[in-house]
Amino acid sequence: MSLRIKKLGFLLLSVALTLLSNAIRAEDGYELWLRYVKVDNPALLSEYQEAITGIYVEGSTPVVNSAKEELILGLNGLLAKPIQEVKTVSDGTVIVTSSPDAQLLSALGVTDLKNVCGEDGYMIKLVNYKGKKNIAIVATTDRGLLYGAFNFLRLIQTQKPVKEFSVTTKAALKYRLLNHWDNLNRTVERGYAGFSIWNWHLLPDYISPRYKDYARANASIGINGTVINNVNANALILTKNYLVKVAALANVFRAYGIKVYLTARFSAPIEIGGLKTADPLDPEVRAWWKAKTEEIYTYIPDFGGFLVKANSEGQPGPQNYDRNHADGAIMLGEALAPHNGIVMWRAFVYDHEVPDDRAKQAYNEFKPLDGSFLPNVFVQVKNGAIDFQPREPFHPLFGALPKTPVMMEFQITQEYLGQATNLCYMAPYYKECLESDTYYKGQGSTVAKVIDGSLDKHINTGMAGVSNIGDERNWTGHPFAQSNWYCYGRLAWDMNLTSEQIADEWIRMTFTNKTQFVEPVKKMMLESRETVVNYMTPLGLHHIMGESHHYGPGPWVSGGRPDWTAPYYHRADSAGIGFNRSSTGSNAVSQYYPEVRSMFNDPKTCPDIYLLWFHHLPWDYRLKSGNTLWNEMCIKYNAGVDSVRAMNSLWDEMAGYIDTERFQHVKMLLNIQEKEARWWRDACLLYFQTFSKLPFPANMEKPEHSLDYYKSLKFKFAPGI
Amino acid sequence: MSLRIKKLGFLLLSVALTLLSNAIRAEDGYELWLRYVKVDNPALLSEYQEAITGIYVEGSTPVVNSAKEELILGLNGLLAKPIQEVKTVSDGTVIVTSSPDAQLLSALGVTDLKNVCGEDGYMIKLVNYKGKKNIAIVATTDRGLLYGAFNFLRLIQTQKPVKEFSVTTKAALKYRLLNHWDNLNRTVERGYAGFSIWNWHLLPDYISPRYKDYARANASIGINGTVINNVNANALILTKNYLVKVAALANVFRAYGIKVYLTARFSAPIEIGGLKTADPLDPEVRAWWKAKTEEIYTYIPDFGGFLVKANSEGQPGPQNYDRNHADGAIMLGEALAPHNGIVMWRAFVYDHEVPDDRAKQAYNEFKPLDGSFLPNVFVQVKNGAIDFQPREPFHPLFGALPKTPVMMEFQITQEYLGQATNLCYMAPYYKECLESDTYYKGQGSTVAKVIDGSLDKHINTGMAGVSNIGDERNWTGHPFAQSNWYCYGRLAWDMNLTSEQIADEWIRMTFTNKTQFVEPVKKMMLESRETVVNYMTPLGLHHIMGESHHYGPGPWVSGGRPDWTAPYYHRADSAGIGFNRSSTGSNAVSQYYPEVRSMFNDPKTCPDIYLLWFHHLPWDYRLKSGNTLWNEMCIKYNAGVDSVRAMNSLWDEMAGYIDTERFQHVKMLLNIQEKEARWWRDACLLYFQTFSKLPFPANMEKPEHSLDYYKSLKFKFAPGI
Repeated sequence: MSLRIKKLGFLLLSVALTLLSNAIRAEDGYELWLRYVKVDNPALLSEYQEAITGIYVEGSTPVVNSAKEELILGLNGLLAKPIQEVKTVSDGTVIVTSSPDAQLLSALGVTDLKNVCGEDGYMIKLVNYKGKKNIAIVATTDRGLLYGAFNFLRLIQTQKPVKEFSVTTKAALKYRLLNHWDNLNRTVERGYAGFSIWNWHLLPDYISPRYKDYARANASIGINGTVINNVNANALILTKNYLVKVAALANVFRAYGIKVYLTARFSAPIEIGGLKTADPLDPEVRAWWKAKTEEIYTYIPDFGGFLVKANSEGQPGPQNYDRNHADGAIMLGEALAPHNGIVMWRAFVYDHEVPDDRAKQAYNEFKPLDGSFLPNVFVQVKNGAIDFQPREPFHPLFGALPKTPVMMEFQITQEYLGQATNLCYMAPYYKECLESDTYYKGQGSTVAKVIDGSLDKHINTGMAGVSNIGDERNWTGHPFAQSNWYCYGRLAWDMNLTSEQIADEWIRMTFTNKTQFVEPVKKMMLESRETVVNYMTPLGLHHIMGESHHYGPGPWVSGGRPDWTAPYYHRADSAGIGFNRSSTGSNAVSQYYPEVRSMFNDPKTCPDIYLLWFHHLPWDYRLKSGNTLWNEMCIKYNAGVDSVRAMNSLWDEMAGYIDTERFQHVKMLLNIQEKEARWWRDACLLYFQTFSKLPFPANMEKPEHSLDYYKSLKFKFAPGI
Repeated sequence: MSLRIKKLGFLLLSVALTLLSNAIRAEDGYELWLRYVKVDNPALLSEYQEAITGIYVEGSTPVVNSAKEELILGLNGLLAKPIQEVKTVSDGTVIVTSSPDAQLLSALGVTDLKNVCGEDGYMIKLVNYKGKKNIAIVATTDRGLLYGAFNFLRLIQTQKPVKEFSVTTKAALKYRLLNHWDNLNRTVERGYAGFSIWNWHLLPDYISPRYKDYARANASIGINGTVINNVNANALILTKNYLVKVAALANVFRAYGIKVYLTARFSAPIEIGGLKTADPLDPEVRAWWKAKTEEIYTYIPDFGGFLVKANSEGQPGPQNYDRNHADGAIMLGEALAPHNGIVMWRAFVYDHEVPDDRAKQAYNEFKPLDGSFLPNVFVQVKNGAIDFQPREPFHPLFGALPKTPVMMEFQITQEYLGQATNLCYMAPYYKECLESDTYYKGQGSTVAKVIDGSLDKHINTGMAGVSNIGDERNWTGHPFAQSNWYCYGRLAWDMNLTSEQIADEWIRMTFTNKTQFVEPVKKMMLESRETVVNYMTPLGLHHIMGESHHYGPGPWVSGGRPDWTAPYYHRADSAGIGFNRSSTGSNAVSQYYPEVRSMFNDPKTCPDIYLLWFHHLPWDYRLKSGNTLWNEMCIKYNAGVDSVRAMNSLWDEMAGYIDTERFQHVKMLLNIQEKEARWWRDACLLYFQTFSKLPFPANMEKPEHSLDYYKSLKFKFAPGI
């Protein structure tokens, strides 16, 4: 065949490819960041095509096979040429092995691979091996290889030059989990992306292809465990009928290195066990949990363990029997220990009685229990002491439980950050907490170091993220909400990654490598969380959202338990606004180490972002900016709205760089976000104005409606309740 | 370019096409019967490519533009060559027009197109027009053109030779509607395909691409209206907040000739109107509905009208005020009449008091009201007098209301026919009812003729199908449930189509034209409904399903209202089984015309399929087959199970003819269906045996479990409640 004909064929092939990928594959977001479309930089594509000729994989366990399958799928798509498994190594072979021979180790420049990679880590490196030029993906475990395979594909997806293919990484945390607040009727508490992806009714006999794709996505970012049901638990999940269904999911996930965990309803021994009590010191109750745990392991040999929400928001727990949280956790920990399972006992608890300051409660409950748990029992602590607010100072329990493995609980689903409709990239949110300095062992004792066990030599370390996944086609509803699933996983692997690095990766893989798109969209993402804080809860305000569904503003929400109302938290009155948690108030600041305590305790040193969290200040209080509190509040709320408008304009400029489907999807949501930002600003400022009695700044946009109008809005069927 | 190069290019193009359509597009069923994949018969493909060179479309209304867009999408896919709109007619131009000139009419051989096509019909014909060889798609309305466009594509999808392109058709019924039993919280009553596709929370600002694809699918089968919310209604849908959301949907559907209808909760004047009563004779109430209706038309200028479930299963209605159904329907009809809207008043009613025979109730209520409704008021009657059972004799109201437009209500969702998991093609079910002879005006007075208005010269005619659509990726959950949406629409257009014709079309468009697949699968589909009847409710048994969720067998279900229990209907006792509705019993037979009445009244002439519907017969009663009733029952139940096994084996042979994804999906569901068929058989026969005290036939497979086991099964979270 003459060159000319070859060229023509190639041209036609390219045309066909382009036509088809436009015509046939509407980009609906289902593929997340694993799209594996052909590399659109011709020079790089040639480089990749030359450098990668086949894959050589050692081993054939299910996890290794998953790695192999993913490499073949990914490379065929990215390189637009058939890449197959080969049985001998030649130039361009990608070598994938968890048992590198001495020659390969030497080529890698490593003696103790375990030391370099840990259990889950891996190396990717260009090597000269037996006289051939190869790329090696090595690890000490199958799971490490799988993660390495995904990272290798990511290098190509993000268009790194071959000469820069060099990664050595180990996981910062041992347990990297998703928590699904999914109910058995398929509703998802605080879910804004449709309904639960678990089709309980058809399990175990119908296995949706989605289960495997879920596992792939999680493995690609290093997530190795999933709690598949709601912390507000139903004991039925522990009955045989459901355990066989759970086992069917576990069978799918296992090949991607993901273990299944369940929530354990504390009263299960009564509800499904026929016992009269669930007292954790009752021998029958203990025997029941032991037997139940053993039963679970007969169905799921690698079952991960239990997550427990006890004595919180109406859930039963050991305190119903005058026992403490440790009593409950130890009972379950003992049942799981022989099977290497763990307990994650949530620190998010409520007292029967309304406390003077709810922020202090978890610390007060758990601090005295430090040291009384078991090695396989985590206390799982939310990032802040209230409840995933747009901004909270770090939880004082971080650094307060040196003898206890403490697991971080972040929320990925945007319960308080715009739910289904607001673009809010959460890596900066997670990083803000992780980088906070507790001063527990002096300066530099960041939350991240508490979590990773380095300060106290804990072996069991972990992070949990409350999932934002639902049955919407694109998994997360908002296309940009995918980035929160992504960045959560990436940070659970490596807390030192920057928000910018992660956003960069995600944008390139999810949308395009075109700089004209990557750079402005990255900037937009990085600013987006601050934007949400500004139009919702600036200056340390918190818990002023709509009632029950938490949709939209509700600073006027009252009635019922005081600590479930808004005024309990904002304390607005004619004198000023804010919750006095300083030493002259609830003294919640006392729960922090002295350096932090004194910083928070004084409004002059307290960062503006936490000001009204810790202080009740007069409306004419002067901030560092020189503005009065009232004016600063107005400025922040307005800045939030302006930023959303800027995001919306910016997005218009992005048309053409990506597919129409996702462009339009985001565009419609940005329009909604703009409406909602105004709604938050107007409703909150009109409401707070009834206390401040001060005028809005002259140049401020007039509120669209009256306060009465905003207060009249009802959303009976808002999602996620 | 030399021919050789052209050929090579074409070859490469074909390879690329094939590779890509395999690699990229996993067949997930989302595209339904509108897949438009390249014609796989090379000879036919050439024929089509030659005969079709472009499309010439007259007009540019939204509906005409939809037709154009669909033709371009479909032809480009099917013919694998670019087909564009052209501005002049040449050989091979497809002419699409609703204002054919005299020359074209002459070429079509038509003088009065309106007479031939009616409002919604169309002609497709090969014509010689101005010396060119063309294909004409003509109609008298835009909607007719859209339907014609879909039918034209169907000719190619089902691989009809070009010379056979000749269609002249008009719609049998004016109103061809779907009824969605979708709640505002997105659950779907009796929905087995996930949750509601209407994302109320994000409407009107976020318009899911699914809304348009929903409209396309419906238009492709002639459906021209949709009631988007549940008959068990929530009045909130009639508030402004929701009406703007409904209007957004209507805006999408309008371009596909589909009108939106809503259910009207009878007590809405109280619940959202602030009135003290909903008495249909109260002037304030009447004024409220008039104003509300006018308000609706300000949002939705082509709003279709109201569907009402009143005084039934706890719904409010005129009887709450000692008024009758006509009083209620007239009030709404008067409000809608100025806008050309209609009322569909359901005949599915319940008395407060438990009747001696629920089957008689609708007739007793509505027969006396005949003639007292308005021309724009339908009475909507279910196919049978109980409730969409696997088999019921036709409803005695058909033919009993000569002065009233009667709309048929079929159920598409398989509430009683295997729900999410059973393959059951329902065209034979619908046809069985439509072809039943009421003898209302002598022999041949079929239900179809009552419905199409021909017996009583009604202008308003219609059919409603309770939708099986949900947010599952493939719309209907079970891949074969798509065929029920499809056949419902096709029959609403033309009740004379055979079940076989429709199945043939559907299989070819949905799966493949390969005879080795089409023929056996068609046979399987045609037998599938009888199979379901056999393992669920043979010989006229009915209403013996699980409680509340209606999942699985529950012949023992008792407690609560007697006419909601199973024994009320099967009346099994030591003497025999069946509901005596003959003249010696409830005398429900008296509601039929004499010829039918006497046939049903005598067990000797009553068809076996309805035997226990009308008669209580001894266990040793001899059937026409020569078998005793008990043995025949055992034989039927066993035949049902055997048939499912045969379906399952047959399906195995179909591997390779279609994509792996849908093959596996159906395979898993057939395995479930096999389990469920055994469950139904074993549970029912064990239960009825406690009355018959007779042994199972010797060769019958032993029940898998005990009766107590089956009675113990609970499905708290079964879908669709």
